[in-house]
Amino acid sequence: MANYLELTKEEAKSLYDGLCKEYEEYKARGLKLDMSRGKPAALQIDISNKMLDVLSSTEDCVVNGIDCRNYGVLDGIPAVKELFAPIVGTSAENLIIGGNSSLTLMYDLIAKGMTHGLKDSPVPWSQVPGRKFLCPAPGYDRHFAITETFGFELITIPMTPTGPDMDMVEELVSKDPDIKGIWCVPKYSNPDGITYSDETVKRFATLKPAAPDFAIMWDNAYVIHDLYEDKDELLNLMEEAEKCGTQDMVYTFVSTSKVTFPGSGVSVVASSKANVDYIKKLLFFQTISYDKLNQVRHLAFFKNTEGILEHMKKHADMLRPKFRMVIDKLESQLGGTGCGNWIDPKGGYFISYNAYKGCAKRIVALCKEAGIVLTGAGATFPYGKDPDDSNIRLAPSFPTTEELSQAMDIFCLCAKMATLEKLIEA
Amino acid sequence: MANYLELTKEEAKSLYDGLCKEYEEYKARGLKLDMSRGKPAALQIDISNKMLDVLSSTEDCVVNGIDCRNYGVLDGIPAVKELFAPIVGTSAENLIIGGNSSLTLMYDLIAKGMTHGLKDSPVPWSQVPGRKFLCPAPGYDRHFAITETFGFELITIPMTPTGPDMDMVEELVSKDPDIKGIWCVPKYSNPDGITYSDETVKRFATLKPAAPDFAIMWDNAYVIHDLYEDKDELLNLMEEAEKCGTQDMVYTFVSTSKVTFPGSGVSVVASSKANVDYIKKLLFFQTISYDKLNQVRHLAFFKNTEGILEHMKKHADMLRPKFRMVIDKLESQLGGTGCGNWIDPKGGYFISYNAYKGCAKRIVALCKEAGIVLTGAGATFPYGKDPDDSNIRLAPSFPTTEELSQAMDIFCLCAKMATLEKLIEA
Repeated sequence: MANYLELTKEEAKSLYDGLCKEYEEYKARGLKLDMSRGKPAALQIDISNKMLDVLSSTEDCVVNGIDCRNYGVLDGIPAVKELFAPIVGTSAENLIIGGNSSLTLMYDLIAKGMTHGLKDSPVPWSQVPGRKFLCPAPGYDRHFAITETFGFELITIPMTPTGPDMDMVEELVSKDPDIKGIWCVPKYSNPDGITYSDETVKRFATLKPAAPDFAIMWDNAYVIHDLYEDKDELLNLMEEAEKCGTQDMVYTFVSTSKVTFPGSGVSVVASSKANVDYIKKLLFFQTISYDKLNQVRHLAFFKNTEGILEHMKKHADMLRPKFRMVIDKLESQLGGTGCGNWIDPKGGYFISYNAYKGCAKRIVALCKEAGIVLTGAGATFPYGKDPDDSNIRLAPSFPTTEELSQAMDIFCLCAKMATLEKLIEA
Repeated sequence: MANYLELTKEEAKSLYDGLCKEYEEYKARGLKLDMSRGKPAALQIDISNKMLDVLSSTEDCVVNGIDCRNYGVLDGIPAVKELFAPIVGTSAENLIIGGNSSLTLMYDLIAKGMTHGLKDSPVPWSQVPGRKFLCPAPGYDRHFAITETFGFELITIPMTPTGPDMDMVEELVSKDPDIKGIWCVPKYSNPDGITYSDETVKRFATLKPAAPDFAIMWDNAYVIHDLYEDKDELLNLMEEAEKCGTQDMVYTFVSTSKVTFPGSGVSVVASSKANVDYIKKLLFFQTISYDKLNQVRHLAFFKNTEGILEHMKKHADMLRPKFRMVIDKLESQLGGTGCGNWIDPKGGYFISYNAYKGCAKRIVALCKEAGIVLTGAGATFPYGKDPDDSNIRLAPSFPTTEELSQAMDIFCLCAKMATLEKLIEA
């Protein structure tokens, strides 16, 4: 395929006119497809349907001698902690089993930092007018939004192929006690699908922040969301941090939102014993317990940790062809054109596409006009502002393969059009 | 029975010695009974067991065209709003269906007041150093604890047979803009079992607080928790407030914690449309949705609002004999002794016992030594400090009738002993 960057303006114009006709044809089809969020497909969710009625009697609800149909047990059923502990990578006593959303656990932790402070906070964060949070970008919009709504200044940290730019992280946190934490999706990062290197994880464990209450928000959302047998391996930060005595800095989050039912799963926060004890003290005021029946439902459905891992293979079998299709379309239609580049991840829920500089917004707009909803351009950056207007997060999970095929044809077409427009006007 | 207050010291001493022997016999039995919390009995919970597996297929999970197994719908499934709206006493659009705990909804609202402010807050409450909250007492310890943990000064408002002392409430809120709200359990109040009179409700609707962001925390926890057909009727505050244009002041909470499964029910917050819109904006950052499957589970189990009310009659049938037993024991063993007084409520979960002044702590301690755990004396007052050391909250729901019978014999004995001790030392 021709490299668009090497075309004359005339060639570009002529090519563009042809693509416009193609585009009008697509528009006429009146498609309506949503590739905006990392939403599992209905067929993926079906594989958990047996969990719906896995509990049916009182006996089913009694675990560890606890009648889980009644009040009590703030931090989760012990057997359910044991179920998830190997996935989180720490001992069960370091876990709190939460409600239906790990995002809520993260929000609540930051909220408690604001109103009460974390364990080692000199003052609650609401009393730190210049509070800041580090946001590796591209990253997860809902992470950034939490710290934005609580009035943190968001500092963009560039992502590299091995994780966040650790030189910059180390430099910033060592100097500024107002920097209170960093958002991380360390395995199959959202949206890049990058897994932090061992060196990156070790550098996190040895961070020396000026803030005594610095929080590494380690959102291990895709910890078991591998697509291939040849999967990425993430070094265990909680273990590394314990070796360095920095375990109070690390808060790990996982959930079953993309394992069983999104919005009806269970979530987990894990940290040092001291942090967990502190969180439980504050949590006492917020609730009597999370939904224990849903915890037990997961336990009865999976039986053990191995059961969860087996279940994830079924998800992988359904997701893999969709990821392959996106990558194949990108390679066959955009490869060599100079219209952008992309990462082929080994897991997670996204494919990160980096458009020709200044083209992302236009591509998203063109797709929308043709009926394809993408994540808003810029969403993967703090304040929704991508300085290069380049990154687009593609979420292939929800559409069917047929829909995805059409959507990607249109996406590639729009990427070409936007690039050509840019080249023509240059 | 003799009025203890009229005994000579010698008579009191002799009576006391006899009771002590009886007490030692009870102690020797090594009983272990818990009457501390308003916890439904296992038999009560059994009547909801059919809800455990009421959903079993994808079709069961699709309501209002929404696949409730997947992400989305922040404020709750429309049909579930319709299910609860008649109970809350407002239109469905004024409802947000929450998670497994209305206490959490209350905590979260106060937390958002702290970090963001409510809709009409001049500044977030964390920036109001002298923030105060009104606490009708005796009241619910967990309410008071929420505002205490957020640094509010708790102001005790005496409870009267018609609700909180409204003269005092009106006087205080009209003058002090730092008073940000009041906790209320308006029907079958915790612990008194008092239902606010129509006049009290109307006076709430016409409150003119100095604070533009004053919040009436209307925890209607026992809205459908009647014990008898001859039930208390609570005037609808949301309707009254709308007549007066004060609807932005009212936040109503209900839950199914004592309807289906405590800790695995659904909760509801309702307020004016403007407040609901504002809360939804802030809630966006905290979660993607609450557990919709549990919402649908409730809908499938109850079918309609009438189904909930029928279900509550079964609870009443099981609770009524327990309440009757407590009242009968109190009347037969303490009636006329001057050892205290009590209220015979028509619903709710508690019986409020007011001991002879200065005796509550001692009674609770004596009971504990004999194996009966009661709610801590003072727990029903702000900071856990009952100025009269008099109020004790009795929670008859959890023990069996046999256990309750024993527990009440011991309780009455301890009440007599503590009173006599006080009279002897006087």
